[in-house]
Amino acid sequence: MSETVEPRLGRGLRDLLPHQMLAKQSMVDTIRHVYELYGFVPLTTPAIEYLDVLSGSAGYEWPYGIFRVTNPENEALGLRFDLTVPLARVVAQYPDLPRPFRRYQVSPVWRADKPGVGRYREFTQFDFDSVGVESEIADTEILAAMADTLDALRVGRYLVRFSSRAMLNLLLDFASVGHDRAADVFRVLDKLDKVGIEKVRLELMDGYRDESGDVIRGLELKHEQVAQIGRFLAIGGNRRDVILQLRDLFKNPRHAASQIDIVERISEHLYALGYGDDKVALDLSIARGLIHYTGPVFEATLLDAPEFGAVCGGGRYDDLLLRFLGETIPAVGASIGVDRLLAALTLLGRKDTRKATARVLVTSMDPALASDYLDVTWELRRGGIPTELYVGMAKGLGKQLKYADQYEIPLAILYGSDEKQQSVITVKDMAVGRASSGQLGDRTAWITQRPGQRTIPRADLISGIRAMLVEVDSWRES
Amino acid sequence: MSETVEPRLGRGLRDLLPHQMLAKQSMVDTIRHVYELYGFVPLTTPAIEYLDVLSGSAGYEWPYGIFRVTNPENEALGLRFDLTVPLARVVAQYPDLPRPFRRYQVSPVWRADKPGVGRYREFTQFDFDSVGVESEIADTEILAAMADTLDALRVGRYLVRFSSRAMLNLLLDFASVGHDRAADVFRVLDKLDKVGIEKVRLELMDGYRDESGDVIRGLELKHEQVAQIGRFLAIGGNRRDVILQLRDLFKNPRHAASQIDIVERISEHLYALGYGDDKVALDLSIARGLIHYTGPVFEATLLDAPEFGAVCGGGRYDDLLLRFLGETIPAVGASIGVDRLLAALTLLGRKDTRKATARVLVTSMDPALASDYLDVTWELRRGGIPTELYVGMAKGLGKQLKYADQYEIPLAILYGSDEKQQSVITVKDMAVGRASSGQLGDRTAWITQRPGQRTIPRADLISGIRAMLVEVDSWRES
Repeated sequence: MSETVEPRLGRGLRDLLPHQMLAKQSMVDTIRHVYELYGFVPLTTPAIEYLDVLSGSAGYEWPYGIFRVTNPENEALGLRFDLTVPLARVVAQYPDLPRPFRRYQVSPVWRADKPGVGRYREFTQFDFDSVGVESEIADTEILAAMADTLDALRVGRYLVRFSSRAMLNLLLDFASVGHDRAADVFRVLDKLDKVGIEKVRLELMDGYRDESGDVIRGLELKHEQVAQIGRFLAIGGNRRDVILQLRDLFKNPRHAASQIDIVERISEHLYALGYGDDKVALDLSIARGLIHYTGPVFEATLLDAPEFGAVCGGGRYDDLLLRFLGETIPAVGASIGVDRLLAALTLLGRKDTRKATARVLVTSMDPALASDYLDVTWELRRGGIPTELYVGMAKGLGKQLKYADQYEIPLAILYGSDEKQQSVITVKDMAVGRASSGQLGDRTAWITQRPGQRTIPRADLISGIRAMLVEVDSWRES
Repeated sequence: MSETVEPRLGRGLRDLLPHQMLAKQSMVDTIRHVYELYGFVPLTTPAIEYLDVLSGSAGYEWPYGIFRVTNPENEALGLRFDLTVPLARVVAQYPDLPRPFRRYQVSPVWRADKPGVGRYREFTQFDFDSVGVESEIADTEILAAMADTLDALRVGRYLVRFSSRAMLNLLLDFASVGHDRAADVFRVLDKLDKVGIEKVRLELMDGYRDESGDVIRGLELKHEQVAQIGRFLAIGGNRRDVILQLRDLFKNPRHAASQIDIVERISEHLYALGYGDDKVALDLSIARGLIHYTGPVFEATLLDAPEFGAVCGGGRYDDLLLRFLGETIPAVGASIGVDRLLAALTLLGRKDTRKATARVLVTSMDPALASDYLDVTWELRRGGIPTELYVGMAKGLGKQLKYADQYEIPLAILYGSDEKQQSVITVKDMAVGRASSGQLGDRTAWITQRPGQRTIPRADLISGIRAMLVEVDSWRES
């Protein structure tokens, strides 16, 4: 045998082992269910795109690294870094796609950035966008879907927050800040959650030195400008309050009123549909600085895990097709960071904690009874009960039960010549076993004492197992 | 505006538009359901692996091209070309994974090969493998799961076929062919389905010139050798017949009997579980030449679409860990070519033909009634009925109904001031509309005549829509 290869992964890459995949899959299924209820349709694009499609011929400044890919034709290709650019390409490439085009896509994206704790180079995004939509009803729907998704995922306390670039542009005028500085100002405003109002003020003016001694350069706005921004940021309260204060602050220019009207209509629609201030807030500090949004902007945070930042973000944009067709199109959408959200739910103890799909392990002690084990297994599977037949190399019962334990399979079936003679099966409730053995206690002892073990007639296999599973589940939930 | 980029995809890559994705997703969900019922657990590995992990340091001859990937550290990376190598890496990398490790993975793989009709450079595989299993029960399970999957997918007539490398090795001895020529002989045997017994005979001997004039080089076996192979290939009939003939043919060597026993046990287990000869055949021509299988080999073909070849294939192998740990481990598994199977089902008219997730389109004619449209939409969604609210830019009803038509959304809700006053809603059965308009006939006419249109009380929204959907579905199925 020649030299072996070390089994390893490249930097920033990771495997999702079964217990992690089960949690992720539950999550993705739940999210998909919500978007399908909203009538979004799925799209999948290939991982590999032309480099100019990804980055734009005009050197569109994408701030993340792109993984380059080589094909046999030696063309310039790369792995997609988001799902918005592929959506744009698709809308441009297939002019016959009916509009509005309301699609969701759940796919991995790749970013060749510096990896860090919880920052991977391959991760999954779940995007949903409506393309070819002007009406604020479309924005309302995106916000409501964000709230519905978080409810469906039972994430605990959350808040969907929205604002509007239109409000921020009014603010720039109000504070006499040139629109050429918009990106800088929005970038600083986005830090409000993280660093607080005082540091935002300092960064808008002369900058400051942070705890680590690094100099944070200021934008050198004037004191009066920052005071005006401060008045804007001080606006708070429920959505109706915020709108009243906005109307008061932006009495001028004349077009301000109609732009505030749009925000108000979204808010009122949400109230009417039952999305109160506890679920969706009008928070003027949301800027979503990075991307060129043109109207409402959204994000969602988990109130019990604020350190994860926005687990979902989006907004209205109209430059989707600019790169490809040189024209604008009204669109609105958002993106869920599936892996980040999963990490947050894991921390909060709210993810799906299954380690196995099987609910029953049929142990296999006596080779002479192989046909019986198969019969029992198939009867359960055909009865709709996910069942694993032990096919491994451990002959002893102890090791087979340990296997059930490692995967937390709730029930194990024991069947030997005694059981066969008496036409019964023995079922072990693994959780009772674990509990009475002090989780990791003396295994031999609890196997001998046989706690949580029950005998049911072979003829009642399905009904007996179903009844025990109901017990197990109610016990787990209590 | 700077120069635009042409929206396009690289060679061999493709998008899956909504109607294609809906079909693929249904298919994947169904397959997943089967494997979870069998207690397989999901695994996901990253798309990017180290090149030596993919290809082996000893220059393991992978016959397909690998897409090279560059990371910021300039390491030698590539996109995975199958899901078996990543499985091997995972098993080697996490020694604590409980065994048997029975995992499924459904993921894209990439091959930088020459693309062709139906041959893409990115496609999805659905793999399921049991690692750390010696018992033929594990093989039985893989075969049964293949049959169950094809049943669940309602593919029509299919046949799962199996044989065993052990039988083929016995054949080599029987025909006095050196085992160093095994790969060549198996490669030729694999062509039997495609070219027929005569050409296989010729290729085993002196070769021949095919229709296009190309020379197919022969293996130059002797006439007597080919005659013996012919006796083996002539074996046919039901599984029990085949085994009788095998026992007759391979009276020697002594170990032949025990190897035939293994095949027989698999066959008998399958009979006992209800997998008769109509579903699973013992077909000695199956060689699966490419991969280094060590025991049973499997494949499945659709009898109504044989041109797609094997839509699922696999077998028993023990060299999984060789590359990484220099040791062997018994394992058995198979892989479903999801995209190939989807293409076959599309041809056979057996795929999910939905174009939309929404079952109802709420049209939006009167901006003053926006709140009402939202109310109706959310009531339906909360009632579990996937519903789309028209949020596009077309004001006219005709265009909105055309949209419902393009996505084949079965019902459209019409609601204007008349309806509001009378506390009713109007529901249009789009299929009736299409039928009476001759699919693409005069749209204005059928809108005016209002065929398939019904009025239901606003208070009975959910029950009324549900009843109409039941009608629509039964009409479609009939």
